[in-house]
Amino acid sequence: MPLATDYDRLCKRLSTIRALEETSALLHWDQETMMPARGAEARGEQLAALEHVLHAQRTAPELADLLEHCLEQVDERQASPIQRANLRLTRRMIARAQSRPAALMADLARQTALAHGIWAKARADKHFADFAPALARMVELKRQEAACLGYQDTPYDALLDEWEPGATTREVSDLLDRLRPHLCDLLDSIVGSEVTPPEPSHDLPKEAQLTLSRLVATAMGYDFKAGRLDLAVHPFCSGGVPGDVRITTRVRRDNLEDCLYATIHETGHALYEQGIDPALTLLPVGQSVSMGVHESQSRLWENQIGRSLAFAEWLLPHASRILPLKIDTPMRLHQAVNRVAQGFIRVDADEVTYNLHIILRFDLERQLIEGTLEVADLEAAWNARMEQDLGITPPDAALGVLQDVHWAAGAWGYFPTYTLGNVYAAELHQAMTNALPELDNLLRQGELQPVRSWLREEVHQHGSTYLAKELIGKAVGHPPSEEPLLAYLKERFGALYKL
Amino acid sequence: MPLATDYDRLCKRLSTIRALEETSALLHWDQETMMPARGAEARGEQLAALEHVLHAQRTAPELADLLEHCLEQVDERQASPIQRANLRLTRRMIARAQSRPAALMADLARQTALAHGIWAKARADKHFADFAPALARMVELKRQEAACLGYQDTPYDALLDEWEPGATTREVSDLLDRLRPHLCDLLDSIVGSEVTPPEPSHDLPKEAQLTLSRLVATAMGYDFKAGRLDLAVHPFCSGGVPGDVRITTRVRRDNLEDCLYATIHETGHALYEQGIDPALTLLPVGQSVSMGVHESQSRLWENQIGRSLAFAEWLLPHASRILPLKIDTPMRLHQAVNRVAQGFIRVDADEVTYNLHIILRFDLERQLIEGTLEVADLEAAWNARMEQDLGITPPDAALGVLQDVHWAAGAWGYFPTYTLGNVYAAELHQAMTNALPELDNLLRQGELQPVRSWLREEVHQHGSTYLAKELIGKAVGHPPSEEPLLAYLKERFGALYKL
Repeated sequence: MPLATDYDRLCKRLSTIRALEETSALLHWDQETMMPARGAEARGEQLAALEHVLHAQRTAPELADLLEHCLEQVDERQASPIQRANLRLTRRMIARAQSRPAALMADLARQTALAHGIWAKARADKHFADFAPALARMVELKRQEAACLGYQDTPYDALLDEWEPGATTREVSDLLDRLRPHLCDLLDSIVGSEVTPPEPSHDLPKEAQLTLSRLVATAMGYDFKAGRLDLAVHPFCSGGVPGDVRITTRVRRDNLEDCLYATIHETGHALYEQGIDPALTLLPVGQSVSMGVHESQSRLWENQIGRSLAFAEWLLPHASRILPLKIDTPMRLHQAVNRVAQGFIRVDADEVTYNLHIILRFDLERQLIEGTLEVADLEAAWNARMEQDLGITPPDAALGVLQDVHWAAGAWGYFPTYTLGNVYAAELHQAMTNALPELDNLLRQGELQPVRSWLREEVHQHGSTYLAKELIGKAVGHPPSEEPLLAYLKERFGALYKL
Repeated sequence: MPLATDYDRLCKRLSTIRALEETSALLHWDQETMMPARGAEARGEQLAALEHVLHAQRTAPELADLLEHCLEQVDERQASPIQRANLRLTRRMIARAQSRPAALMADLARQTALAHGIWAKARADKHFADFAPALARMVELKRQEAACLGYQDTPYDALLDEWEPGATTREVSDLLDRLRPHLCDLLDSIVGSEVTPPEPSHDLPKEAQLTLSRLVATAMGYDFKAGRLDLAVHPFCSGGVPGDVRITTRVRRDNLEDCLYATIHETGHALYEQGIDPALTLLPVGQSVSMGVHESQSRLWENQIGRSLAFAEWLLPHASRILPLKIDTPMRLHQAVNRVAQGFIRVDADEVTYNLHIILRFDLERQLIEGTLEVADLEAAWNARMEQDLGITPPDAALGVLQDVHWAAGAWGYFPTYTLGNVYAAELHQAMTNALPELDNLLRQGELQPVRSWLREEVHQHGSTYLAKELIGKAVGHPPSEEPLLAYLKERFGALYKL
């Protein structure tokens, strides 16, 4: 076996780190689903203790030495692509851990904790100015972090790379700039259309909604012996080892989509994690490759599959058996779950406006980090762009600039991965449709396993062996672009709104 | 503040260790209640990684150096009893971690994992000989462990000290030897009695049983904002920080006691953990003092309080409102939950026979560890003692020597803490009755807070500030003995069986 001794010793150290990271993920899952209220303080201590230990393990001189030895032997020992990826990811992990000074990370942790409370109160009071000082301090700290991490063109590069390794601000910015006018045009056409999709008012019992969600997740191929479904305020998917990947959802009695499509979305994420080659478990290469690719898995299932007419034909009889639905044909269901609206809130947005919400945030947070926009001018910039792109002006900051937690939480550079996910999803869907010409017939019969199998083969199993762009490029046969997404949106919404 | 700098730095290190220990406890809780089946392998890796980190932290030279500095300053800086206890417990923790060779601990971990499977199969097959070789190997490893830990009189001392710090084999052995003939006599009288307590056959819905259990736990003072109740195969209490102490129970539709009394028992454990002075959280002194004292809290609530006639007078109206009970008077309920029987199974045993089951196990495991009994002769010795003390001979090994998991799990020296718990419970109950002369009237009205408050004041809040014997001695005003337990059993069962 190539790279035998040193590489094995490296992997042993890496697997301890991965196991501790997974432990931390479980503590977070428990915090959101099971933990009693008074456990919060002790949980904070537990997470901090794990971070402390993880930092020490990632920056241990022995780990760096082992890595150096392995890198020296790569060529002579004919390392496999997986081994090379592991070494690359280990180098990245060590570099990022070493380059962030402990004092800065402590400042960031403190500021994040502080900013969350200030943001929540400012949002409740609908008053941006109350949050502005905390936001300005956060911008300053994230700029410092970017400086420590290092970057080529702009400090935003360093922050983006955290979530989408290998992506550059330049290429993401170009991609989003190309998308934006087409989305605005499509939205204008839809707003001008005379079609009014049904908007039924439901009263759907909680347990029945969960029953339907479990049925759909099972049909998608989610393995309940390697996961579970619980309720949470903000649905999420947790766990990075294929044997234990948990999803959460939420329920509104008057709303079919909240529970069902949150479940489909999170199941899409979970199938990715459950589908990574188990031989890679507990190594850096056994992790998902980027947030963009992760989001492509949830969005493809939620939108391209889950909101298709063919899927509605399979879903409706099951949904009607379980729930007192006020929808009687698959087409009406298809129309109802694809309503387009000029809304203020990103998380409630449809497929057409969603990316406009994202591009707005990407542009503004990049300008803040690059110093070309002041925090004091942020709310005005937000509202102007909303008017420009969506044709509506937020009546208050809670419906505008204060709606998302990301900036208070320190998740800068995260937003564009949502749209990258939509772009990748459309690419993958197009390639999948070519590979499975009978796809619609399969969906009509609820035969979803070919979808999961194709995604597992092309995406899931590889973990982080390739960079996101490479992975998607290999799967679809060309460098990923925005064109399949635009074609897909024009086709679906052109038909629905008779454009 | 005395011992300022070094002591503070020591406490910071200790709090990281405690937080990681609590993390490990949460992983165990999750494993028993929430974890999907296929998560077992990854969970094993996570627990092993935590153990690895904990061992490194406990044996870090910096920790030992800090401890030495603090110990040198104890007198000159006028250390408080809590500070002294912390230093004593830290010395104990370091010594135990240092004295166990990594190779032996790895052997023990492997043998424990192996033995569990072999034991479970042998028990299913009712065939002791299949388990005997694994058991013999376990005896050998535990003897090695005892030799590494060191002991005064017998290797059993070292194993007992793990669960009951400060207790010696000699004094436990003397105590149990004094108890045993009295218990045998009492059982003989009961068997000869003509009283037949009611044994109603129930059909009690699961949710209703849990509702009653929650009502009782709440009345006992269990804080559901600092805990939760879930189902588990073997009920347990988890969590050692007052803000997050979780209990589990189980339900049998045909049985009132399984769910209700398991809940009362585990709530007793949980009130101890919730009642430790929050200022001690995340320090060794903030942990429960011993398994014997822990068991005294569960048993006092379960038996002295929960199976009393006064408690039945409060409980019955609530239970009858919630459940279709076939019991119509408090006395019948009191009789039903205090049935004495010559049974084979420890966990189903009543208060009279329970300690006979324990004394049998204590004597046999001590002889195995001391080399005066061979594994080959264990089953015969078990059966002979069952005949001698309980007047029954197990028809097979599943109802006899193979019934408990402890020996396969490596928990040697644990069994006597059950009876120590009963002894301490009776002592505490006697002292509490003196302090609260109106106790029965309070119980009749479901006013259980004076019980919790007395226990919190006398026992819970102190954590591990004192050794178990000292703590109980301070609470009751004399060195603990078996006499209150015998007096309590004779009074309760004398009345019930008209002896």
